[in-house]
Amino acid sequence: MKSVINELEEKGRTAKAISRHMAYLSTEVKNKALTNIANDLIAKRDEILAANQIDQQEAEKADMTAAMLDRLLLTSERLESIAQDVLAVATLPDPVGEVFDMRTLPNGLLIGRKRVPLGVIGAIYESRPNVTIDISSLCLKSGNALILRGGKEAVNSNSALAKVVQGAATRAGMPNGAVQFIENTDRTLVAYMLTMSDIIDLIIPRGGAGLIKFIKEKAAMPVVAGGIGVCHTYVDESADLAKAVAIAYNAKVQRPTVCNALDTLLIHTNIAEAYLPLVATEWVKADVEMHCDKRALSILKSMPSLKLVPATGDDWGKEFLSLVAAVKIVRSLDEAIGHIEDYGSGHSEAIVAQDYSTAMRFLNEVDAACVYVNASTRFTDGSQFGLGAEVGISTQKMHARGPLGLKEMTSYKWLIFGSGHVRP
Amino acid sequence: MKSVINELEEKGRTAKAISRHMAYLSTEVKNKALTNIANDLIAKRDEILAANQIDQQEAEKADMTAAMLDRLLLTSERLESIAQDVLAVATLPDPVGEVFDMRTLPNGLLIGRKRVPLGVIGAIYESRPNVTIDISSLCLKSGNALILRGGKEAVNSNSALAKVVQGAATRAGMPNGAVQFIENTDRTLVAYMLTMSDIIDLIIPRGGAGLIKFIKEKAAMPVVAGGIGVCHTYVDESADLAKAVAIAYNAKVQRPTVCNALDTLLIHTNIAEAYLPLVATEWVKADVEMHCDKRALSILKSMPSLKLVPATGDDWGKEFLSLVAAVKIVRSLDEAIGHIEDYGSGHSEAIVAQDYSTAMRFLNEVDAACVYVNASTRFTDGSQFGLGAEVGISTQKMHARGPLGLKEMTSYKWLIFGSGHVRP
Repeated sequence: MKSVINELEEKGRTAKAISRHMAYLSTEVKNKALTNIANDLIAKRDEILAANQIDQQEAEKADMTAAMLDRLLLTSERLESIAQDVLAVATLPDPVGEVFDMRTLPNGLLIGRKRVPLGVIGAIYESRPNVTIDISSLCLKSGNALILRGGKEAVNSNSALAKVVQGAATRAGMPNGAVQFIENTDRTLVAYMLTMSDIIDLIIPRGGAGLIKFIKEKAAMPVVAGGIGVCHTYVDESADLAKAVAIAYNAKVQRPTVCNALDTLLIHTNIAEAYLPLVATEWVKADVEMHCDKRALSILKSMPSLKLVPATGDDWGKEFLSLVAAVKIVRSLDEAIGHIEDYGSGHSEAIVAQDYSTAMRFLNEVDAACVYVNASTRFTDGSQFGLGAEVGISTQKMHARGPLGLKEMTSYKWLIFGSGHVRP
Repeated sequence: MKSVINELEEKGRTAKAISRHMAYLSTEVKNKALTNIANDLIAKRDEILAANQIDQQEAEKADMTAAMLDRLLLTSERLESIAQDVLAVATLPDPVGEVFDMRTLPNGLLIGRKRVPLGVIGAIYESRPNVTIDISSLCLKSGNALILRGGKEAVNSNSALAKVVQGAATRAGMPNGAVQFIENTDRTLVAYMLTMSDIIDLIIPRGGAGLIKFIKEKAAMPVVAGGIGVCHTYVDESADLAKAVAIAYNAKVQRPTVCNALDTLLIHTNIAEAYLPLVATEWVKADVEMHCDKRALSILKSMPSLKLVPATGDDWGKEFLSLVAAVKIVRSLDEAIGHIEDYGSGHSEAIVAQDYSTAMRFLNEVDAACVYVNASTRFTDGSQFGLGAEVGISTQKMHARGPLGLKEMTSYKWLIFGSGHVRP
């Protein structure tokens, strides 16, 4: 173990030393690194997919759930989509060096803030190998050095992808070692990494609730945590029912294994009898299992071949990450907001409503990273939001909230230009 | 102890419940609360100064240092200055509700970010009773509820000031209980407060290095820490010597007990013989003790009546908080930057230089919250920076850096307006 820890420290010190130079890289070099990554993802797809195949086979042997296998899977199409996201990041403005709030004070001091990289980012993540690329592209473009520590289940995929990033960055003229990859997946190494507060400026955890809790408790440095999405969609009595069906269907079915998928559907009592059979008819085609409260059960019980389960207390506030939805009938907007306040994780919450005041109250009063009117919560995503990609989705209020893009990977420093100024 | 913890929890729950309403207060009500505070600080000055007298007497009995007594002291003049800062906060724009980055995505979704309060701020601080007012005014204006826990040594002053705030806020129409004050100064109560992560959204520690280390280690919620200022002023060979004397004098002498005061003076070797006697002549008038490296000692040793001490390794990177300065001769800008990198606390760093490129390199390469050219580091202050006042000065890169004003006491949420949008 000791030699592995030495290696980790060595990698950390290298990243720290390099991070000072990363702050001064030209936008051209950083963009070149990103286009190299995008090109190599396609050029080296056979190697990458072969590495992913090994992970897939191991995962099947280990009896992983379908949700986990899906998160792990790379395909040609997914690689192309990941490469597109990298190119999108390349087209975004470089956040580093931006000067803002610049002004002259009454005493003549010229003062403002200049955007700077955070330094060294530590990414600790599970399953999804695309995280290796998403985080790398955003960190390189924002001038941060990076230490990647992916999950055991994706180690072959992650290693292949990290090599792509490292090669692409070096070829573009970035200092060697800007992206460090920890091959060893021993969990004690994660614990040690969390003590390296003199080297790592920020830890980004991505994974299940267990990993995130562990990291928040143990990390000696700041953490931007999130990714746990207990997402509600509230269908108001004023809703356009066709839109409400399409939105609930999309939010639950389009990719059920991710954090912005619908978990609980809240329905206003006055339209429950009209709406619930419509959404149930669509959901059952996609094999969605509905965990219903009593009233919802009684509305649906006469419909054939639905997958209905009586809801228990555990269903409220649960992140299903699968084709399961909890369903609850509420008497009012206030009850819906109250339920979200009690059970939401502060990730993404939606209302479907045609009544203007109702929609605006929901927008104002629901306290979450992303609040939607008449749209699917599936849009909560850095790429969808126009940030190019995302390092993660923050459900905390400090530093940044929602998808973490380029700007969220930076800090600033105050610049003060005087001409001999002293404080009176 | 149990009943005190119950009381703390009760106060916390009240603040949490009220924090939801605080988000919707009109700017008018918030500004009225601030003008009430400013007026009451003057109207009730006798009570406040009498309470402060009790703390002063206790402190003298306890043999506190002059620096600590100074931090504790309230006077009519200081109250007036504090009241002015509160009024300055009232004139600042209300950050809450500001909408930014609003745009229409190619798919027609209208998306942007809206500024919201953080929720409940926990302030844990030592000595300086003005912190009670500074933090209260900024938190109230930014729509946050607040739990104040000041130091034992200032408990009478803080209690009197907290009563002023509470009365002023309620009279303005704010919900009762927006500002909670913890009278009990038992340290186990602080430890308990740091576990209340379901109630307190952010902890702001203000005090000595020991307090801040304790809080960073123990807090279950995010912390914005700072206030430890190991501040350097580098006098370059190109410096205007008169300005360099005035700046070093001001940075060390104007208020030596605070975090933005000069600790180490770095001097380029080529001007050391010309400059050092000039600054020593001024400093000795204010009774400054100089901890000098060998070269500086040899330059100054023939001057009469200076307070010279040979520097030891401990002097570099030390926050003196008193009329002591470390003095070191360096051979180059690089050595100065390297010394600051090794020993600075990332607070405030200054260069005095007439050479443009040298000044710009210092600005770019020194990694600190505030970097100055030709000005005293004493300006690092929310009020001086035009933020009205400050909740503290952050030396970390996450969330906010440098003086924490109104905007830094907020978060944002993403608002997404659709018309039936689903993700393809």
